Amino acid sequence: MQEPREAALQRSIDSLGHDFSGPLRQGGDYVPVQRDGCTAYVSGQVPRVGQTVVVTGRVGAEVSLEQARHAARVCAVRSLLLLREALGGLDAIQQVLRVGVFVKSAEGFSQQSEVADAASVLLKEVLGDAGSHARTAVGVYELPKNAAVELEMVVRTRDPAG
Amino acid sequence: MQEPREAALQRSIDSLGHDFSGPLRQGGDYVPVQRDGCTAYVSGQVPRVGQTVVVTGRVGAEVSLEQARHAARVCAVRSLLLLREALGGLDAIQQVLRVGVFVKSAEGFSQQSEVADAASVLLKEVLGDAGSHARTAVGVYELPKNAAVELEMVVRTRDPAG
Amino acid sequence: MQEPREAALQRSIDSLGHDFSGPLRQGGDYVPVQRDGCTAYVSGQVPRVGQTVVVTGRVGAEVSLEQARHAARVCAVRSLLLLREALGGLDAIQQVLRVGVFVKSAEGFSQQSEVADAASVLLKEVLGDAGSHARTAVGVYELPKNAAVELEMVVRTRDPAG
Repeated sequence: MQEPREAALQRSIDSLGHDFSGPLRQGGDYVPVQRDGCTAYVSGQVPRVGQTVVVTGRVGAEVSLEQARHAARVCAVRSLLLLREALGGLDAIQQVLRVGVFVKSAEGFSQQSEVADAASVLLKEVLGDAGSHARTAVGVYELPKNAAVELEMVVRTRDPAG
Repeated sequence: MQEPREAALQRSIDSLGHDFSGPLRQGGDYVPVQRDGCTAYVSGQVPRVGQTVVVTGRVGAEVSLEQARHAARVCAVRSLLLLREALGGLDAIQQVLRVGVFVKSAEGFSQQSEVADAASVLLKEVLGDAGSHARTAVGVYELPKNAAVELEMVVRTRDPAG
Repeated sequence: MQEPREAALQRSIDSLGHDFSGPLRQGGDYVPVQRDGCTAYVSGQVPRVGQTVVVTGRVGAEVSLEQARHAARVCAVRSLLLLREALGGLDAIQQVLRVGVFVKSAEGFSQQSEVADAASVLLKEVLGDAGSHARTAVGVYELPKNAAVELEMVVRTRDPAG
């Protein structure tokens, strides 16, 4: 039996060792989640906790694969928290449809898929089969706030109201 | 009261100081706007006016933040003009859903969000609340025609015909 | 009259000179195609044939424009084969909506649109007007498995079942 999503998310948060209890800060003149009927677009998330981007720099150089995977998990948790707020609860997520992962990469670093996997696995741990998704992972040159990873997603929601 | 969209767009165009009266040229074997029911996908736009990409080069090196913001505004105007043509008018835009912004970035340049904000603000100036959107901004290594910025969007349209 | 899609795809495959008869391998913890009603999201594809990514390296340096265009075609064929498998046949593709093309680019290489055109033309050769689409092409710094090109797409399907 699938664990309740709220409990599973809390377990993921605990394992990351960050405090996500404050407001989810964002820079920029856009909305975190834009709904369109049963589709919800989540803005690109950097691994920010409170005021701080917790993993910065170039993956494959000063940022290790494991640190980048940690960053991807933080991005995924932020996305879930923003969806929970916008939709009124995690149970309103019917299916994650597409995840895009951007990794600030050092020359010669080609494990963007291994970085993205950390987020993909977390989404399935929290949402079960509803966390499964199509995905694109690429290695970019720079990211906002010198973040090591940025993650965006599109999800199907249960209820078009809101 | 919200200004009529056509007048607001003209004001944005005037403030940019470019002549957008000619056909909107594009390179490549694709369509500028692809509709799917009430969803419209706008192809990635570089800051081209007439035959010329008006802001080229690497942002944070030979291109300043303010020049990059100008480029982002030109991309947003092009997108609106293409939507106006495809949909038969700006009033057919019900909601901008997602904007993707790609900034050709110098090493160490991490203000992609500040670049993208210029486009986001313009969209809201022209469309009001309908211009609000989810957004992803990243720093890429190169762009077509050496453009400094490229911008794509997905919008909800009022009318699925077309 | 439009050639049957299956025959057109086989002709495209023959012209590429690769054997696509085996299973379509992927790395990573995601699904190749995620459906949502009549929309299908295809995960980012690198030019892999069997176990091998057939075009690796930086376009504009060790990879030529023509080799990159070959890579883009292989990505497009993979996407079509994955859609055929997920949808039960190529005829279930009603319209390609959006194609995203990421080119691992050398400094100064700005022909990302010319690379992407090779995929766009192939899609129209196989699908006719249904292969026409909106598109975004950008130059990234690195790609998974050192691939030269990665391609993703969103398509409209005829039948929401499946």
